[in-house]
Amino acid sequence: MKRYEDLSPSLRCIMTPGPVEVDPRVLRAMSFPVLGQFDPEFTDIMNETMAMLRKLFVTENQWAYPVDGTSRSGIEALMVSLIAPGDRVLVPIFGRFGHLLHEIAERCGAEVFTIETAWGGIFDPEEVIAAIRNVQPDVVAIVHGETSTGRVQPLAEIGRACREADALLIVDAVATIGGVPVKTDAWMLDAVVGGTQKCLSIPSGMAPVTYNARAEAKLLKRKQVERGLRTEDTAHELPVVRSNYLDLGMLQDYWSPQRLNHHTEMTSMLYALREGLRLVLEEGLEARHARHALHERALVAGLTAMGLQLYGDPASKLTVVTCVLIPEGIDGEAVRTMLLQHFGIEIASSFGPLKGKIWRIGTMGYSCRENNVLRLLGALEAVLLRQGCKLPCGPGVQAALDVYEQNVR
Amino acid sequence: MKRYEDLSPSLRCIMTPGPVEVDPRVLRAMSFPVLGQFDPEFTDIMNETMAMLRKLFVTENQWAYPVDGTSRSGIEALMVSLIAPGDRVLVPIFGRFGHLLHEIAERCGAEVFTIETAWGGIFDPEEVIAAIRNVQPDVVAIVHGETSTGRVQPLAEIGRACREADALLIVDAVATIGGVPVKTDAWMLDAVVGGTQKCLSIPSGMAPVTYNARAEAKLLKRKQVERGLRTEDTAHELPVVRSNYLDLGMLQDYWSPQRLNHHTEMTSMLYALREGLRLVLEEGLEARHARHALHERALVAGLTAMGLQLYGDPASKLTVVTCVLIPEGIDGEAVRTMLLQHFGIEIASSFGPLKGKIWRIGTMGYSCRENNVLRLLGALEAVLLRQGCKLPCGPGVQAALDVYEQNVR
Repeated sequence: MKRYEDLSPSLRCIMTPGPVEVDPRVLRAMSFPVLGQFDPEFTDIMNETMAMLRKLFVTENQWAYPVDGTSRSGIEALMVSLIAPGDRVLVPIFGRFGHLLHEIAERCGAEVFTIETAWGGIFDPEEVIAAIRNVQPDVVAIVHGETSTGRVQPLAEIGRACREADALLIVDAVATIGGVPVKTDAWMLDAVVGGTQKCLSIPSGMAPVTYNARAEAKLLKRKQVERGLRTEDTAHELPVVRSNYLDLGMLQDYWSPQRLNHHTEMTSMLYALREGLRLVLEEGLEARHARHALHERALVAGLTAMGLQLYGDPASKLTVVTCVLIPEGIDGEAVRTMLLQHFGIEIASSFGPLKGKIWRIGTMGYSCRENNVLRLLGALEAVLLRQGCKLPCGPGVQAALDVYEQNVR
Repeated sequence: MKRYEDLSPSLRCIMTPGPVEVDPRVLRAMSFPVLGQFDPEFTDIMNETMAMLRKLFVTENQWAYPVDGTSRSGIEALMVSLIAPGDRVLVPIFGRFGHLLHEIAERCGAEVFTIETAWGGIFDPEEVIAAIRNVQPDVVAIVHGETSTGRVQPLAEIGRACREADALLIVDAVATIGGVPVKTDAWMLDAVVGGTQKCLSIPSGMAPVTYNARAEAKLLKRKQVERGLRTEDTAHELPVVRSNYLDLGMLQDYWSPQRLNHHTEMTSMLYALREGLRLVLEEGLEARHARHALHERALVAGLTAMGLQLYGDPASKLTVVTCVLIPEGIDGEAVRTMLLQHFGIEIASSFGPLKGKIWRIGTMGYSCRENNVLRLLGALEAVLLRQGCKLPCGPGVQAALDVYEQNVR
């Protein structure tokens, strides 16, 4: 039989919009022996994680817990649980992940209405508010930080408009949580999903969600206790959720003191999430957002000094993703391959209309630090020179160092 | 702000039907730094994992990969992808997890037909075959190893009958894979899901699945490329799958050389899965099944020598779960609590009609070893004595030692 070798992954500098490098303390947490899922020590860890998630989402919501799957499992859990078949759902789209929300809403059996704006920009909130008045949706689903284009959509006015129109607002904050302010209560977001493998710097595998009492009221109209556990049939005001695995009504019973058996909680991933959240709260949300902004400034200063041009409207730039136009005549994929193979650095390409036109550089979580930014700028200069691009030698790294020096003063 | 302490879970001896203890080599694998999801080193690990899963499932199927979620995400992925709304689905039920299959099939929009047999036994395959002839189902979904009752259902005749009736057979082998033979091709199982946190001794978080060309043919009739990635609309012979996250048609594109972007693969969990599979294949499937059988024999000998009685029909006993009747007058939960708090050992209670009537003891994966079995027997005797149960001192551990000694000879 073929013998498989020991696992031995190379150490990478990951400057993509996720998955990014993981703090060694989080990696260590996953190597702890597991506890049983109903062990009181483990349920204590579950409760602590909920308390930490409330702080992360800046919310007083009762419900804040991880869905056991990658980020899109959390998006789908919110949508399949809060969108009843036949609901009117409005999806404003300003990049690839808006299209994903459209796709999932359709699969939930919704009547979907979309508005689109050109990639590289965002919506004036008034456009979305006008669409809300026009469509009168039951649910509005929108992306906060769009990694495909590197844009961030302000949400406060949209949140208020949804509340006034009695629509539920579902927000995909996968790319922003932990790197950019996400104010669940202040912005009146009814349901929010965050990502682990981006600004939280936890491996992909869990999707933290939170939702308020308005959202819960809708869940309760669709709630069903599982066959094999239930003692009586119940009538429902709205159809039962189409998924068992992603039914938030069941998940919240599992995360409540009732601990009604559902799935087997992902022990090691929960250890990682708890440790990652501990590090985020220890750093402090404001300090963390400021750190992300600092390294973005240094990166942008360096890229600009090298003569590279940024993509998209600067007014809506997402701090944690910087999109760079690939210079005329340069093969973007050859640059990425050389960066990875010779320098051990990963940056990202893009999707759809932007494929081959831009690189996307992430400055997220643990990857977002001075030595990574400087290393990338130096390596990118060398690779571009090697690929025949004409650019001055040296100014990229120097410009970034200037930003860091000014920051120290 | 409240400071959260360092994570510091106690070391447990976990003798439940999962989650069970994890081999330290698997725990170590999760502490390796992460790779990006499209890094060639990472996609190599994905391919290796597929090759190992084919061996685990004893199949030549092209498709064998993990669904990113706990075991029931894999069950639901198979069902939601292979059951079209309106399909006739037959679910034979012999314990709690049969009810779960019923529940999920209903949520998929199926017309569900069930047959039930008393808990503690299994079906004579002829009963299931008669039901297949009678119902003429599109899909049959059945549990292989039922942890709620500790029974195992033979599947070869049922597999042949499904093939003859042109029904797809979906098998929940969550509890059996890696501990008990599961012969996907020989038994003509069209789609199988295994669990990680049981006999594979990998933390909960991934659900390995495999399915054959018959199952894939049905998937392809429902396939849709995601909005934001697709270049043209396609017509479908059958309705599009109701889930995006669990749509196997999309997952297989992501696991194919095409690598069509879907979710962000769970890096650290995949490291764990690959390492866990490596250890399983290094031990060898037959040797591993024999090991599970040996420790079951020792456990059963010990329990019997203590005067305890086993639950259920011995002919259908599942090797890896031993159900024990709680002696008259003894509080089963008090025994479990004392075992955990004083001895650091976890055993399980049960569900529904068996709640308070039996304990369930697992001998699975890394937990399934001599020192654990002996430790449990000694501790159980001490706790039962302490709880006022009349039983002889000493013979449990001695009887188990006898089994181990005979095995060495």
